[in-house]
Amino acid sequence: MTSLKKVLTLKEVSPMAHRLTGLKTDLLIARAEELRKEIKQGVKKPFKEVIEVHSGDGQAMGTKPVTFIRQVMAACFYPELLQSDRLPRDVKFRAQELLQQCGGSVGVYSDTFGLEYVQHNVARFIEERDGGVPCDPQNIYLTAGSQKAGQLLLNLLVHTSGCGSGPCGTGVLVPVPCSPWFSLALQEAGGVRLPYFLADQGVCWELDVQELQRVVQSARGHCTPSVLYINNPGNPTGHVQSRQSIEEVIRFAASEGLYLLVDEVYQDSVFGQGRAFLSYKKVLYEMGPEFSSRVELAAIHSASKGVAGECGSRCGFIEFVNLDPQVKSLSASYFSANSLPPTSGQLVLVTALHSPRAGEPSYYTWTQESQSHLSSLSRNAALVVESLDRIPGIRVLSPQGGFFCFPRIHIPPLVVQEAETQGLSPDLFYCLRFLEEWGVAVGPGSDFGAREGSHHIRLNLLLPHDKLKSVLESLEKFHLQFTEEFS
Amino acid sequence: MTSLKKVLTLKEVSPMAHRLTGLKTDLLIARAEELRKEIKQGVKKPFKEVIEVHSGDGQAMGTKPVTFIRQVMAACFYPELLQSDRLPRDVKFRAQELLQQCGGSVGVYSDTFGLEYVQHNVARFIEERDGGVPCDPQNIYLTAGSQKAGQLLLNLLVHTSGCGSGPCGTGVLVPVPCSPWFSLALQEAGGVRLPYFLADQGVCWELDVQELQRVVQSARGHCTPSVLYINNPGNPTGHVQSRQSIEEVIRFAASEGLYLLVDEVYQDSVFGQGRAFLSYKKVLYEMGPEFSSRVELAAIHSASKGVAGECGSRCGFIEFVNLDPQVKSLSASYFSANSLPPTSGQLVLVTALHSPRAGEPSYYTWTQESQSHLSSLSRNAALVVESLDRIPGIRVLSPQGGFFCFPRIHIPPLVVQEAETQGLSPDLFYCLRFLEEWGVAVGPGSDFGAREGSHHIRLNLLLPHDKLKSVLESLEKFHLQFTEEFS
Repeated sequence: MTSLKKVLTLKEVSPMAHRLTGLKTDLLIARAEELRKEIKQGVKKPFKEVIEVHSGDGQAMGTKPVTFIRQVMAACFYPELLQSDRLPRDVKFRAQELLQQCGGSVGVYSDTFGLEYVQHNVARFIEERDGGVPCDPQNIYLTAGSQKAGQLLLNLLVHTSGCGSGPCGTGVLVPVPCSPWFSLALQEAGGVRLPYFLADQGVCWELDVQELQRVVQSARGHCTPSVLYINNPGNPTGHVQSRQSIEEVIRFAASEGLYLLVDEVYQDSVFGQGRAFLSYKKVLYEMGPEFSSRVELAAIHSASKGVAGECGSRCGFIEFVNLDPQVKSLSASYFSANSLPPTSGQLVLVTALHSPRAGEPSYYTWTQESQSHLSSLSRNAALVVESLDRIPGIRVLSPQGGFFCFPRIHIPPLVVQEAETQGLSPDLFYCLRFLEEWGVAVGPGSDFGAREGSHHIRLNLLLPHDKLKSVLESLEKFHLQFTEEFS
Repeated sequence: MTSLKKVLTLKEVSPMAHRLTGLKTDLLIARAEELRKEIKQGVKKPFKEVIEVHSGDGQAMGTKPVTFIRQVMAACFYPELLQSDRLPRDVKFRAQELLQQCGGSVGVYSDTFGLEYVQHNVARFIEERDGGVPCDPQNIYLTAGSQKAGQLLLNLLVHTSGCGSGPCGTGVLVPVPCSPWFSLALQEAGGVRLPYFLADQGVCWELDVQELQRVVQSARGHCTPSVLYINNPGNPTGHVQSRQSIEEVIRFAASEGLYLLVDEVYQDSVFGQGRAFLSYKKVLYEMGPEFSSRVELAAIHSASKGVAGECGSRCGFIEFVNLDPQVKSLSASYFSANSLPPTSGQLVLVTALHSPRAGEPSYYTWTQESQSHLSSLSRNAALVVESLDRIPGIRVLSPQGGFFCFPRIHIPPLVVQEAETQGLSPDLFYCLRFLEEWGVAVGPGSDFGAREGSHHIRLNLLLPHDKLKSVLESLEKFHLQFTEEFS
């Protein structure tokens, strides 16, 4: 054999893969995993277990799955259970309906845009949620999760710089802070990231239209600002937009000709006093035909969040508003080749969207579980705010919805220097030290972005209350000691 | 509001989405769906039901799911069933093990490359399958299905023409005929498709290394041939490579410096007399270190095929052989952002790969179900060959494995003209007529490719035997009548 060079080397790997850089959270997770293994092997540590508070995975934090959803899924996977007296009547009825709609088995492929039944029942959910604003099932595209939905949309919308129309590719407005998956998907699609800052003063990370205006104006000329990405309720911020704020954004998008890409996966988890979730779609319709007939909108939701919290099912959907009919027909091939939502995930999703009704046997349990989801988020949020407010050098804006809060951490200048010599960002240095000394993994804020010179961590509100309490006590002790050490 | 133009229009949609063209099968499926609705509405048709024989979806064809897999999944979704006496002991044991490995719930996110437990048990399956050839779990990457696996690999391997190294982008050798998803993924990745023809004479669509040689030679200069895609056992052909044929291909890949991308999803479904499945990995290792230490290989498998046939679970895996360590570490971010295998799908997959053992309560049923899978494929293959051989103008090479056969159809010249005036390919014209008159949907061959001027249809071997028999009788009557009409 001649001595040929390898095909897949670091030099030869495609530029697209090169664009994706690693997250700081990945380093933290890797270290948490090592620590867990060391403890198992009997290595002595100043803590008994590693607690991860960085992710949004409710069930991994110990949240109990929703009984109704799980019973329905068990019967769908093994229909002989329909003969059993272990399952309530409404569970059996629902499972039978689902099975009938997928040809008798969850093992079948689904249609390009999802099972027709699921599309219809997602549309029905949206109409009920939005107080009767009509929703055409044909505009519902099922996807393998909300992240996949975002990737699919970006790949439709983005012209990479250097090809296509416009001066230098498609500009996409992205909030700061923002969950890193969206920025990674944008990098991969080859779009130009146009960061807009959420207000880290005031009530809670509010969205300021003047900031959007500033970004669009300064972007024109070196790219074509075309897409505005919104995450409401917000991750990692916990902010929830008011009707007025949404109307302002819609007016701005309309006047600038921006495509609205709205990620609403935390819609079921609003707990802030006097706050309620309003969908962009509903507000858009209520602004009248001048807007509702013209503003282009794609809204994303998922089975991974809310009461269901079924992260493992990997199913979400897009609702398109004012989608160009020609693009719709073109996108069929594209979605057919790329969307691929699991059939079982679609059944999880549609079950999660339609709770049992009053009078049905599962109604009481569902209601309890659903209330407990919101009340525990709300209780945890109050605890976090109260506990962090006590700590000098930590400041948090009170979250109103979603799974997270994003406290600002004062990091002493000496740490910034020390971190630099170690090739780490200051926040990652802080998080790794906290993990090493107290066994708690919080998310390094720089994965989410922030104003220059400010440092944050991301904490979820999903831990059992008592565990969260002890995590916050550890954080207080750590932070004081850490600040002293480096002052 | 100023009159701004829309963002997402056919003109403005990204070039990547434009690259994906529709499949002829999609038109057929759409028409089948319309016919089904017409029948429901009472429209009179010359048939009572529409039968689809084009897809590889076993459970949609009526195949019963594997009891053990479904029982395990039911218990994983609703662990209270572990208390029930409806489930056998070994099912409960397996479900408990799986639950323990995913933190107690199928509702959690999985790690980047899949759950560690699943990686380990996939590796154990491969070692058993390959008679002890070692498999490192670190080389197993779980994906959201085999199609996703192929897309991920192509996106790592392909430099689009116009950028990257080499004269004009990455050349990928693709068999003809071949399942269209691969060619679509290649289009999307922006690679150069280099078709090689499988032999449509002789035993059954054999792979000829001289043909590969011809393609590589004529490609050099206008692209960089770098990847050789193999599908063994083959879809839509039904061919199964011998050890000698695999060795020849490996020697060729080694001498030309080609990356081997091997799709082996039909590995559990070999039924041809004297044929057995041999993995490329096993043959590569048995060829000795001269090859096994250097040839780069990625092999794909899935839970959608074989005895399990769990298409709806969307889970598969890649085994990398000789993956460059630097690429491995780079690919973590890439897979983390793109692979996203459902947790429930991973549990389906790993359960499918490890059958109950002799003496365990589920052993007998599993064995029955598994044998019935192979015997019904084999019986159906014999029926297809026997029935089609009787029809003048239809010729089929006897399938040896997989879910399909790919008969060649003589289409009269008048039809070719008539189809052209209607803007259809001759095979789609044929398939649509068959559907319209007999209610049977077979796959138009041109989606899979063929030598210029030859026409084919794709038939699956998954229908219940009696139904297949009546489909073949309809095909005979239709074909004779059709040929007469246009002669």
